[in-house]
Amino acid sequence: MIPKQLLTSPSGFLDLSPAEAIAQSKFLDIVRRRFERAGFSPLETPLVEREAVLAAKGEGEISTQIYGLRLLNPDAEAVGDEKELAVRFDHTVPLARYLATHSRELPFPFRRYAIGPVLRGEKPNMSKGRYRQFTQADIDVIGDGALSPLHDAEMAAIISDIFTEFNIGSFTIRINNRKVLSALLAKAGIGEESVASAMRIIDRLEKVGRGKTAEDLEALGMPAEVARELVEALTAERSSADTLKYLEGHLGDEPGVTELRIVIEALKDFGVPDANYRIDLSIARGLEYYTGTVYETRLDAHPDLGSIASGGRYEDLASAYIDRPLPGVGISIGVTRLLLRLIGAGLVLADTSAVAPVLVTTAERAYLSTYLRLATELRQAGVPCEVYLEDKALDKQLHFADRKGYRYALIAQMEQIVGGRWILRDLRSGEQRELAASDLAAELSNESR
Amino acid sequence: MIPKQLLTSPSGFLDLSPAEAIAQSKFLDIVRRRFERAGFSPLETPLVEREAVLAAKGEGEISTQIYGLRLLNPDAEAVGDEKELAVRFDHTVPLARYLATHSRELPFPFRRYAIGPVLRGEKPNMSKGRYRQFTQADIDVIGDGALSPLHDAEMAAIISDIFTEFNIGSFTIRINNRKVLSALLAKAGIGEESVASAMRIIDRLEKVGRGKTAEDLEALGMPAEVARELVEALTAERSSADTLKYLEGHLGDEPGVTELRIVIEALKDFGVPDANYRIDLSIARGLEYYTGTVYETRLDAHPDLGSIASGGRYEDLASAYIDRPLPGVGISIGVTRLLLRLIGAGLVLADTSAVAPVLVTTAERAYLSTYLRLATELRQAGVPCEVYLEDKALDKQLHFADRKGYRYALIAQMEQIVGGRWILRDLRSGEQRELAASDLAAELSNESR
Repeated sequence: MIPKQLLTSPSGFLDLSPAEAIAQSKFLDIVRRRFERAGFSPLETPLVEREAVLAAKGEGEISTQIYGLRLLNPDAEAVGDEKELAVRFDHTVPLARYLATHSRELPFPFRRYAIGPVLRGEKPNMSKGRYRQFTQADIDVIGDGALSPLHDAEMAAIISDIFTEFNIGSFTIRINNRKVLSALLAKAGIGEESVASAMRIIDRLEKVGRGKTAEDLEALGMPAEVARELVEALTAERSSADTLKYLEGHLGDEPGVTELRIVIEALKDFGVPDANYRIDLSIARGLEYYTGTVYETRLDAHPDLGSIASGGRYEDLASAYIDRPLPGVGISIGVTRLLLRLIGAGLVLADTSAVAPVLVTTAERAYLSTYLRLATELRQAGVPCEVYLEDKALDKQLHFADRKGYRYALIAQMEQIVGGRWILRDLRSGEQRELAASDLAAELSNESR
Repeated sequence: MIPKQLLTSPSGFLDLSPAEAIAQSKFLDIVRRRFERAGFSPLETPLVEREAVLAAKGEGEISTQIYGLRLLNPDAEAVGDEKELAVRFDHTVPLARYLATHSRELPFPFRRYAIGPVLRGEKPNMSKGRYRQFTQADIDVIGDGALSPLHDAEMAAIISDIFTEFNIGSFTIRINNRKVLSALLAKAGIGEESVASAMRIIDRLEKVGRGKTAEDLEALGMPAEVARELVEALTAERSSADTLKYLEGHLGDEPGVTELRIVIEALKDFGVPDANYRIDLSIARGLEYYTGTVYETRLDAHPDLGSIASGGRYEDLASAYIDRPLPGVGISIGVTRLLLRLIGAGLVLADTSAVAPVLVTTAERAYLSTYLRLATELRQAGVPCEVYLEDKALDKQLHFADRKGYRYALIAQMEQIVGGRWILRDLRSGEQRELAASDLAAELSNESR
């Protein structure tokens, strides 16, 4: 037999218990419904890609985190390509590869969502929410040569809809535009060769504070006073309208400012409440990949959770694969990290491993048919239920219902069976009442779970 | 740039196009809803397990098909366990491992479903539906020491509900019991040492025919006349009731016969129409793993598709991991193979890559707000829609709608905008009519997609 300590899942590869998996499933149902409501279709690429495909797009740190796939049995008949197989580390690279081969037959703009696991060979850190396998939920729109900034607004609107429905407290989508940031940096005297470094400095602003950020910018050659003013401007508390006014005054008709205005105006048409977003000029996003709009999303009461949905606009998705410019914009939700942190913070409950509201108990073994038929009727009426099928005493069955987290139990002993009635017991309050079989489905449909 | 021929997904690792992914998603929604309606909760184990865990349970051929996971970059900082990681080849082994470590805290019977990808290093064969990655949808119930055969009936009822709702034509769940088959073999003179071989011969009966099966049984030492009679008995066309009568006459109160009777009787209570199942004594299932009830499911009009849902009862799920007997029963649907074959056979349509019913076109660029607001209203009313955001002529937008497979397009030119009305065009029939904005949501909710 295998030693006990080997029977856990490997570190960074999580088991989601039924209660956690139910909570995740509720969240992903919202995500998927909102993606689809906005006309995003699923695209399902495999977990496995050719190593060359992943390596061509995996920039920086990621390139050291790619898992290859190898048949374990050295005598196994190989397919021939076993040395080329590797596991995806995100949903964007497979999208780029798919579009590179299918761009001719697809209608553009191409809108797709992808929800599923990705793998990264990082050192796991449970408290930081860093896992080796995690679920990402992505939406992207890809244009053929060009793509209206209206899409950038719609992305933010979808994120707003998702977190409004998920109901975990107020949140703010912070929106910026990297062209705007570049123009501000240029105006502050940063030459093109230092823009990337300056962006990385600004990306850490929230973490290290204003003073340190100004110092770091100085070290890049920016005069102290200019650096201080820039950091002031990036962190000024202004309404989105005032920020746009400031930018128009300061930068004139810089294209990034126009894009930002289009995005902010369209957000109103997409029905996003003002409180759910603001322009935040300090949002830079680390990756050089992004070229225009960038987003981060914070829970207002839980800034410690970090960004719960991030993304942005990129110039050319598939330049590593084809020479046809495919600009796009996308947002990604790191589902596993978000969900487990929300459960940890008590903002999401994972308090029941019962996916159905009710357990049909089977007190009188001689009348099994009665119980099975009731369960069948409830299911046919759309009420999920489990029927207890083992031959155990009623109190054991109720104990089971309680442990598993059922809200209700249905009970019929001889007296009820003879009378065609059922006892509906609320396992939280202990209250119970008798109902006719014909009323149960309606009653249980009305009850909240 | 990467050579073009490397930009396809690796052989046996499929891209599902949006149209295929939509079809799969519709099927999996049915599967999940039916699993949950019967009180099965999700359990989500990772894609990756320790090699020792998989190797302990991977019997026979499977053991040569296990993929290991290796960091590609030799200089990458390893977590330390990289040489132990392997990818799951089914959902049963992870379930066994999970139960081995959590059995003390879980309420039994433990019911769970798992829907997700598994990987096997086989030689892919598209025409046979053999892939290296495929989605499996599994349900299992695990008992603590014992488990009522009523669960075996419920499994079949769930499969019946799924394929009834999926509506791909009539089907038959063929049910047998390996104890019954063993008893019939024993009565025909097969010693215990040859039962497994005889089972494998019977497992091929449908493929090789009666004559060849009788010959193969003879080769095992069965007298010709006995072999012929046994094959006759296994393939006789009888109702389930008559088969039970035959078995009771022939085998007396053999435990397998009692189990089979309990299963068949409970199927009625679970509301399964008689036409959806029958006892088929020739169903053996190859794996020695199964010890009682076994199932296969065929589409009546498409026997060539093979079994679309199979499974059975096993004595002890986790004997490789803990010494606590955990008997169970489960059924698995090979989703990828089934779905692609149904699409290939025209039984399932994958004819639209639009997940929403309607495209909101944007004919008058100056009135963008009007279009965005209509799309927002429709979405808020629960009607999924895409709004066309690029600055293109209306005919190009309608061409896009058509190519993507939208059923409807909403059009407003100046005349309609001024009048607050919309043209709803049916893109299949070409018919169109004008509606007030306030009527659109109700109208589109009523339309079938």
